Amino acid sequence: MVIEKEDKLILLTNDDGLYAAGLKTLLEVMEEFGKVVLVSTTESMSGMSQALTVKTPLRVKLLEETDRHRIYACNGTPTDSVKLAINQLLDRKPDWVVSGINHGANASVSVLYSGTMAAAIEGCLYGIPSVGFSLNNFSPAADFTACRKYIRTVMKIVEKDSLPAGVCLNVNIPKAPKDEIKGIKICRQAKGNWKEEFEKRKDPMGKTYYWLTGVYINHEPDATDTDEWALANNYVSVVPVSVDMTAHWYIEKLKGKFRK
Amino acid sequence: MVIEKEDKLILLTNDDGLYAAGLKTLLEVMEEFGKVVLVSTTESMSGMSQALTVKTPLRVKLLEETDRHRIYACNGTPTDSVKLAINQLLDRKPDWVVSGINHGANASVSVLYSGTMAAAIEGCLYGIPSVGFSLNNFSPAADFTACRKYIRTVMKIVEKDSLPAGVCLNVNIPKAPKDEIKGIKICRQAKGNWKEEFEKRKDPMGKTYYWLTGVYINHEPDATDTDEWALANNYVSVVPVSVDMTAHWYIEKLKGKFRK
Repeated sequence: MVIEKEDKLILLTNDDGLYAAGLKTLLEVMEEFGKVVLVSTTESMSGMSQALTVKTPLRVKLLEETDRHRIYACNGTPTDSVKLAINQLLDRKPDWVVSGINHGANASVSVLYSGTMAAAIEGCLYGIPSVGFSLNNFSPAADFTACRKYIRTVMKIVEKDSLPAGVCLNVNIPKAPKDEIKGIKICRQAKGNWKEEFEKRKDPMGKTYYWLTGVYINHEPDATDTDEWALANNYVSVVPVSVDMTAHWYIEKLKGKFRK
Repeated sequence: MVIEKEDKLILLTNDDGLYAAGLKTLLEVMEEFGKVVLVSTTESMSGMSQALTVKTPLRVKLLEETDRHRIYACNGTPTDSVKLAINQLLDRKPDWVVSGINHGANASVSVLYSGTMAAAIEGCLYGIPSVGFSLNNFSPAADFTACRKYIRTVMKIVEKDSLPAGVCLNVNIPKAPKDEIKGIKICRQAKGNWKEEFEKRKDPMGKTYYWLTGVYINHEPDATDTDEWALANNYVSVVPVSVDMTAHWYIEKLKGKFRK
């Protein structure tokens, strides 16, 4: 693949690994916009958040090259993949970092645990317009057909106006047939958390171990401006995500407490 | 250890592992406030962010019990440790989640990668007042003496007024002798990112591998209201961190773009 100066260069990754159907769909749609460099893992990296690989060396292998894309396998987290691509694999900064399509929603507080969104956040930290896409369907055999239209709509808006510094987009697509999806809602991250998070079991030696599991609790089921509401009501949710985690509204109040 | 109803119950963790000097210091200071349940790993979990262990079972082992604390070893991430403690090890919700003292600063965008801050964020998601502490000194032999006073000051304020829902604190202490630290500054997260993030090497078989490394770039070195400025000028920085990552200020603008 030759990347010309005028080509849009798109860095693509995900956290479900190179063989995920959602990644294949996103690669196809991104090829409509530009030249794609895909860096991901052979293994799933779900729930890896913004984790970095600090204790083991990273390896990268070119798996496939066509005139529209290059596909690399890497043994790191989604954040490592973005960092490696920008620092070592690409001759210039990509125009976009795009991540997904995740098998499973990343609405509400899942943005904090998601490897998919971590990759978009990493791109954003590099000053690159970045978007993470997720489908509200955990199945490896999920149907991503309905996603294509909404990915195009979102990326055309990013193409036209870019994104402000420090803001990336978290896009979640409902699990619904194409003609039942009602459109796009710009939302805020719903307040919620997880509970009953472990299953306690005994191994064949009689020793206790725990598997992560859990139930999501929406703290504001009646609010209609959240990503959770949008998804539950068959809208595509788009949340602008800030890499600045400061609770700015609380700074002056906190100063007052330390002054006393 | 008997935990009475009137005891303050403190859940303590870190990301440098059970043998870190910073953890020992924080345990000692927390015992001044209440009964402490400590859950951490034998291995370092630096840079694990909010990662969850989803592919392997978790194990927990009680290592030590006194009349003031219980120490558990766990094989998961800092976020796993908090979740396991709240869901499986404790009979009631802890009054505080406290994490650290990290060997190395977690100012600016490091809040996104830090296992120490992830543990505090996790506590906050459970509605528990939570604070992460870090010392701007990576050395395993770092001197944590100066930290004690500031930890007490911060936790007395949390004890008096609690913290608002969805906000935890990111406290960074400068690497300076006790009498050169000028006090506490309430700050915002500095804008910055990392560059030159990998060292490329050849293994004995001649194959390429990469080690994570890098240099932090402060995008606003002249701003005096950031955590980076505070640390560089020998102040303890306290940043209120929001678990809501929505860029609220951008919602209406983004709606406008989708309406066109």
